[in-house]
Amino acid sequence: MPRQITAFSNPLVKRIRGLREKRHRREERMFLAEGLRILTEARETGHIPRYIFYAADSADHRLVRELVRVVEAKGGEAIETDRDILHKLSGKDNPQTVIGVYDEFDTALDRIDRTAASIWIVAQSMRDPGNLGTILRTGDAVGAGGLVLVDDCVDPFSVEAVRASMGALFTQRIAQARWPEFLQWLRSGPGELVGMSLDTDIDYQAPRYAAPTFLLVGNEAQGLPADYAAECDLLVKMPMLGKADSLNAAVATAVMAYEVLNQRRHIG
Amino acid sequence: MPRQITAFSNPLVKRIRGLREKRHRREERMFLAEGLRILTEARETGHIPRYIFYAADSADHRLVRELVRVVEAKGGEAIETDRDILHKLSGKDNPQTVIGVYDEFDTALDRIDRTAASIWIVAQSMRDPGNLGTILRTGDAVGAGGLVLVDDCVDPFSVEAVRASMGALFTQRIAQARWPEFLQWLRSGPGELVGMSLDTDIDYQAPRYAAPTFLLVGNEAQGLPADYAAECDLLVKMPMLGKADSLNAAVATAVMAYEVLNQRRHIG
Repeated sequence: MPRQITAFSNPLVKRIRGLREKRHRREERMFLAEGLRILTEARETGHIPRYIFYAADSADHRLVRELVRVVEAKGGEAIETDRDILHKLSGKDNPQTVIGVYDEFDTALDRIDRTAASIWIVAQSMRDPGNLGTILRTGDAVGAGGLVLVDDCVDPFSVEAVRASMGALFTQRIAQARWPEFLQWLRSGPGELVGMSLDTDIDYQAPRYAAPTFLLVGNEAQGLPADYAAECDLLVKMPMLGKADSLNAAVATAVMAYEVLNQRRHIG
Repeated sequence: MPRQITAFSNPLVKRIRGLREKRHRREERMFLAEGLRILTEARETGHIPRYIFYAADSADHRLVRELVRVVEAKGGEAIETDRDILHKLSGKDNPQTVIGVYDEFDTALDRIDRTAASIWIVAQSMRDPGNLGTILRTGDAVGAGGLVLVDDCVDPFSVEAVRASMGALFTQRIAQARWPEFLQWLRSGPGELVGMSLDTDIDYQAPRYAAPTFLLVGNEAQGLPADYAAECDLLVKMPMLGKADSLNAAVATAVMAYEVLNQRRHIG
């Protein structure tokens, strides 16, 4: 049976609310995801929250009832609450009616099976949670296997990154590694490392990319360090006709990922 | 001669700080842009700020001196200040050393010369300033002429949108219009209106796009209204292999814009 919580001072509310801070996520190894659609998609990929909070006035919604059922069947806890508490948990003025609290995934690199997909995305020192989430979403769309976060990236389990991923966090594999560790893993199997760079004359549409393709995008402000670029099998750039000579990192990744996908598909 | 301001209570500081709110921008018809690189690029496209604030410790920088010179030559005012004031003006913890205050541009639709470029981007009810700025940046990269904001979009002169545009706000034409007004203007001259939609079977790589191409992207959550889609010359979609069946609006716009550009260029 769901329990009811409507007090701000409830210890569980305080604890879950704390998950908006990285420090608490590290301690608890849990993170928040919001919204009925995303929680339902997460469930379809086998991710069941440990806690689910839902607004009392949505308790009769079929999908909410279904989520509550599976959470409880898996030993988790369902909590019926109100909009004020949901606002407090999510930090949003118009919170979703459902919030799930999930165990963090294992992000060890050696858990990745590179043969499972022909595109993988690798982000180096990516700092913006919106970019990270957007790249996960793009990865889902192009059929990528997942995202490897190299060096000091923003936390993929932050509320902002999860929100921007629109559920793709649950469909994409996520790994975290330092650069030497990533390189060693990469070179232990098949894979072409393609870096996006401004310091090359090779147009991104010129090469035929070999699978699995690892698309490497650098930090938003600095781009790829020169010694990282030197390790790539190929450096490519997109044409830029304007004055700024730069693209948003998530945009560049998407344009590149669609090129790789387009080379491998039949246009219907 | 630059004047010096280091008091938070200074009326000009208060007034400029107010430009972070839309209400005050509407009254003053001015907006903020930050950073030496962006202000310098703005200048190269003929945009001189009415006020320029800079940190005293960057007063000797060649580009800062040059900006101060042109601002004063055009009758504007240069203000030497400190990091605390710059923080207060920008709202950022690590503010840029230079902030410019510009007159808002005229965003009347009839100021646009559609023959000046072969790609134009049209956003309908776009709500996220980061998406809007990112699309401006993409527009700059693909050589688009500008961005038409249809219906109730986020303010392109908001600090967040200007920041995300990374200076592209100054290189792209910006217009604002309601849908009927836009349609009437569009149909008064050449132009193919291409809508991005999930409700079509036409792959985005199948058609040959006619110039000038107007790429229409709908609201982040709702997509294009059906009656807007019905007015398009063509509806196309990107392949999406994943579970989410959606892309970030700025990402979809970029993938589409690069396809149009790619059809018209020689790959080097």
